Amino acid sequence: MASVQIREAKEEDCGDILRLIRELAEYEKLSDQVKISEEALRADGFGENPLYHCLVAETPPAPGQLPGPRLVGYGLYYFIYSTWKGRSVYLEDIYVMPEYQGQGIGSKIIKKVAEVALEAGCTQFRLMVLDWNKRAVDLYKVLGAHDLTEAEGWHAFCFEGQAMKALAGR
Amino acid sequence: MASVQIREAKEEDCGDILRLIRELAEYEKLSDQVKISEEALRADGFGENPLYHCLVAETPPAPGQLPGPRLVGYGLYYFIYSTWKGRSVYLEDIYVMPEYQGQGIGSKIIKKVAEVALEAGCTQFRLMVLDWNKRAVDLYKVLGAHDLTEAEGWHAFCFEGQAMKALAGR
Repeated sequence: MASVQIREAKEEDCGDILRLIRELAEYEKLSDQVKISEEALRADGFGENPLYHCLVAETPPAPGQLPGPRLVGYGLYYFIYSTWKGRSVYLEDIYVMPEYQGQGIGSKIIKKVAEVALEAGCTQFRLMVLDWNKRAVDLYKVLGAHDLTEAEGWHAFCFEGQAMKALAGR
Repeated sequence: MASVQIREAKEEDCGDILRLIRELAEYEKLSDQVKISEEALRADGFGENPLYHCLVAETPPAPGQLPGPRLVGYGLYYFIYSTWKGRSVYLEDIYVMPEYQGQGIGSKIIKKVAEVALEAGCTQFRLMVLDWNKRAVDLYKVLGAHDLTEAEGWHAFCFEGQAMKALAGR
């Protein structure tokens, strides 16, 4: 099998990235929450001050397939700021299509994010995972991640929609 | 009692902000994790492309106190990117000194963050809280936040130090 290449996303990948974002949300049983558009992904990730960065996993076409790249996974990250450790990286999403799992593509994406983080002077990178996603949890633990929710009790909270408007007095 | 004012932090507040960051970490029983310096806070938050934004709660001096501002709380936030909802705000830290709690200062900071988020076109803001910090958990719930860890099972993971270097092959 020809090897999968991990590279930085280009603006013209956004249609494929949106397809993968939707697949991941479906796997997470939360696909009703996806409100993003291809246009927003293009505008937000590829201007002068990109709001995110994205790595994609690309396969060459299989025999008989139409030529051209095929994206089978992605890792979308951005820089955050820890008041304890300073500049840090946050891996918002990581996904590999089911038929390409088990080949180490996810690990390659995570390793590349760790390289980016170190090069940017970060001493940590964070991510979130659903506790029932055992495959992902096991991978992150094998690669050396700590579960801060389990160890220290961190819970993620979110204000959105009407609650946020009410807070802001709108 | 003279009212507390919520305003944007200035570079010269960084000494006070660091004091409050350390107080919060001590309350969270995680003060050994604070590695940040005042110099880093100054450089990272107040240049051309600030890595974070900060609100501070300031009291006027009490009778008999030395004149000058006194910072008694802060909220430190930055912009993140949701692949479901687009640009979002993350409230990294929020803290009010114990003797100033119960006056609604925390709520005022959260409301101001919601205003900033709406003005920037965000439809959500996120934060993390320790599950035993009942006072904070109750406040966020009263204000309309959802506990995504409880509702959906999200766990926070972190790669750092040696694990991150090993990942990056260093």
